[in-house]
Amino acid sequence: MGSLQNQKPDNGFAGTIKPLDPEEFRRQGHLVIDFLADYYKSVERYPVRSQVEPGYLKKRMPDSAPYDAEPIEDILRDVQKDIVPGITHWQSPNYFAYFPASGSIAGFLGEVLGTGFNIVGFNWMSSPAATELETIVMDWLGKMLNLPSEFLFSGGGGGVLQGTTCEAILCTLVAARDQMLKKIGRENINKLVVYGSDQTHSALQKAAQIAGINPSNFRAVATTRADAFGLTADALRATIESDVESGLVPLFLCPTIGTTSSTAVDPLGPLCDVAEEYGIWVHVDAAYAGSICICPEYRHFLDGIEKAHSFSFNAHKWFLTTLDCCCLWVKDPGALIKALSTYPEYLRNKASETKQVVDYKDWQITLSRRFRSLKLWLVIRSYGVANLRKFLRSHVKMAKNFEGLIGMDKRFEVVVPRNFATVCFRISPIEIGGNHQIVTKEDAANNFNAKLLESINESGKIYMTHAVIGGVYVMRFAVGASLTENKHVIWAWKVVQEHANALLTSS
Amino acid sequence: MGSLQNQKPDNGFAGTIKPLDPEEFRRQGHLVIDFLADYYKSVERYPVRSQVEPGYLKKRMPDSAPYDAEPIEDILRDVQKDIVPGITHWQSPNYFAYFPASGSIAGFLGEVLGTGFNIVGFNWMSSPAATELETIVMDWLGKMLNLPSEFLFSGGGGGVLQGTTCEAILCTLVAARDQMLKKIGRENINKLVVYGSDQTHSALQKAAQIAGINPSNFRAVATTRADAFGLTADALRATIESDVESGLVPLFLCPTIGTTSSTAVDPLGPLCDVAEEYGIWVHVDAAYAGSICICPEYRHFLDGIEKAHSFSFNAHKWFLTTLDCCCLWVKDPGALIKALSTYPEYLRNKASETKQVVDYKDWQITLSRRFRSLKLWLVIRSYGVANLRKFLRSHVKMAKNFEGLIGMDKRFEVVVPRNFATVCFRISPIEIGGNHQIVTKEDAANNFNAKLLESINESGKIYMTHAVIGGVYVMRFAVGASLTENKHVIWAWKVVQEHANALLTSS
Repeated sequence: MGSLQNQKPDNGFAGTIKPLDPEEFRRQGHLVIDFLADYYKSVERYPVRSQVEPGYLKKRMPDSAPYDAEPIEDILRDVQKDIVPGITHWQSPNYFAYFPASGSIAGFLGEVLGTGFNIVGFNWMSSPAATELETIVMDWLGKMLNLPSEFLFSGGGGGVLQGTTCEAILCTLVAARDQMLKKIGRENINKLVVYGSDQTHSALQKAAQIAGINPSNFRAVATTRADAFGLTADALRATIESDVESGLVPLFLCPTIGTTSSTAVDPLGPLCDVAEEYGIWVHVDAAYAGSICICPEYRHFLDGIEKAHSFSFNAHKWFLTTLDCCCLWVKDPGALIKALSTYPEYLRNKASETKQVVDYKDWQITLSRRFRSLKLWLVIRSYGVANLRKFLRSHVKMAKNFEGLIGMDKRFEVVVPRNFATVCFRISPIEIGGNHQIVTKEDAANNFNAKLLESINESGKIYMTHAVIGGVYVMRFAVGASLTENKHVIWAWKVVQEHANALLTSS
Repeated sequence: MGSLQNQKPDNGFAGTIKPLDPEEFRRQGHLVIDFLADYYKSVERYPVRSQVEPGYLKKRMPDSAPYDAEPIEDILRDVQKDIVPGITHWQSPNYFAYFPASGSIAGFLGEVLGTGFNIVGFNWMSSPAATELETIVMDWLGKMLNLPSEFLFSGGGGGVLQGTTCEAILCTLVAARDQMLKKIGRENINKLVVYGSDQTHSALQKAAQIAGINPSNFRAVATTRADAFGLTADALRATIESDVESGLVPLFLCPTIGTTSSTAVDPLGPLCDVAEEYGIWVHVDAAYAGSICICPEYRHFLDGIEKAHSFSFNAHKWFLTTLDCCCLWVKDPGALIKALSTYPEYLRNKASETKQVVDYKDWQITLSRRFRSLKLWLVIRSYGVANLRKFLRSHVKMAKNFEGLIGMDKRFEVVVPRNFATVCFRISPIEIGGNHQIVTKEDAANNFNAKLLESINESGKIYMTHAVIGGVYVMRFAVGASLTENKHVIWAWKVVQEHANALLTSS
């Protein structure tokens, strides 16, 4: 068709793709929204824990990238055929593993809007709305948690959205480290000591590793069942005193509100008092349980926070905000900024020079940052404080119901008191019997419960994970997936009983 | 309506929100897709650099979170009214600042799918598809870049998706640090030295700060205009030798392919030879220019990479993948894993025990990780290698055109040779005249060009940023926004000329 004369001059641009054509964006965007709506509709039917074998996907994919373009319809077909079977469905109503990754329409749409704008918000200038919305939402959320005003921008502190708790701990640890080294001299870096308990998340140890803390100066202070696996002030003090006697320098303490293994709570008040005596920076990690502290009846778990230096929780766990979104507040942003700021020529700008603006690049590890505040803003506005509280309480209620069901079956026991919406339970040793020569009753129980959990998870019907606390192997039942209703909890209990029956019969 | 008897029992769950209702998800999802499609349609009309004043959003927002739910329609109205004016439009076709954040339909949809699945992919088990797709796509991309096979999984190395280059550098630096400390003893941490040039991105300095490297052991080796602001092997060697003489221990070198200020290229081959002599870990940062090395005619910029230890580039810059997506390859994943792994009881699982699987949590700072490989996979499949090359070349061609336009106006000069799609230019000192008593011609030129740039950016018509290289203030014109066509480049040049005319007349 058409002679050469009628063709537009090429100029080297003919045939170039239009990767952001608005109407094609609209068409493909609607396709993917429908794909995901259908996914949520059917997610209950998939095995919760993926049942694929290592290497499954390599067999289904070419070794090299395609040379030519492929239509979105083909790609979505492959997502359904090849990717979905390899997904462990964190959004399934039958997902009770680890801690929840509670998705929501509002959290999803906030991420989608941010992805659409695709700004790189390292400083105020690079998109003022991203920085300003973040400062506003972090003050909103700080007030919802009834944080002391020193943690809010309005009170001289401030909040920042990190990706994960690992980053929040690393940033505050580096701030604390540099503050201390300024006092005692950099040559003493190998004397710095970091404190947690044997229940503290591995994020603390990893942050210490990255920050160059001497690995032999990482203290996982022992906890006991008698103290419900909370870190006691006495145990902390004894450890610190011994370190000080050895000439070491106490630096950083990370108490937890809702530990990963059993949702234990470290007593903030007494721990902060000890820390204060020794000039230790206290970072409070409420990754899981922070969310429910917006309910007044749970706020007491944060009592003592007024004496801490920094506080974080993960909105992507149990606050309807998609991964990743860790909310970190500090009383002294200056300490963070001193440790993390750089100001190369190519980032200089009028707004930063006036010091009237927040440049979040200096509050975190990375320079580039996504527009994360949008999703938190959408979650809070779409649901409102009242509904968020109601929703979190509904999970606690479901966990209570599950606990009640356990209580009606004498073969099972709840191993530690439930604080939030996670239940740690097992088949008790009495049931299994200790008629072995070598192994103790407890060992036998641990083995049996591990077998039971694997048989449940292999079925794909529900997914739970485990922990070992005080030497006891427990199954963890964490309620919090957004699609979970009470009927799923009741059904989950039936699944547990059926698998227990089968295993007890066969053994 | 209805008597109490007819109501379903409450059980404490009545009135709870349904945050993942599939049909409501569908409805709201379509609304947001349309919102964004309309945004792309109109983005050209917005001032590129946001024109709001610091604090603008605080005046428009309540001080506290809303107690009750608000409809998505109201929220989207506020996004348009309050957020869009505060956005600096990185997706505008008239955006030529920093480096591009090249969005695309495929990159967007990949992020959307990943957000929808909302898995927390710390290890293989937590969603096998996320890990396996990442290993496959990283090998695809490694082959597209013609990386030596030692960097690929198929050759004993491997790739991982980090958020940003800051994380990639920090992870490899920590791996190098721990490897070296194992040899020389942890008490020598303050002797470790990190090397870059005065053109290296501030990410290196920040990573060194975080990793606990003595700040006085950070070397920004001087570059010169004569060497096109590349780091020379001679200058590196001289610096290293002086450090070794002082009893310090050379640790880490970060050469750049495409520096931020002027897209200068450090000569990998000669630098790696020097590094090898001293046992230095070499991490190659090709954050910006890595993308175009998928075109055979640009691959020579990576010559020498076979002697480096690790390599990274940002797919979120110039590879149509939305923020954040930094591709990192290492020859020795074991070094990374040794420095970054933790394996607490609650993450133990059968697949990890067999060591048949990759657990990416041990390749990065954070435990939790998003399903980032989906977007890279969608970009590569949706466009194919051929179109990706063509598209990147079209940006180079536009930058060349811009250079040509500069060449036709004798008042202007291109300050450094253009390597890729970024042009560094200014009004030359001759034009401005040096008729000042105190300031030199060069100082006057610097001031004038700074004023010119600010007047251009204030107009909102186009957005460029600046750099100072070898004492010379330059305007940077970086082509790469996905909506930019040659007509926008031609228009941008007119805008520059008009503002120059006005300023030259008035001064």
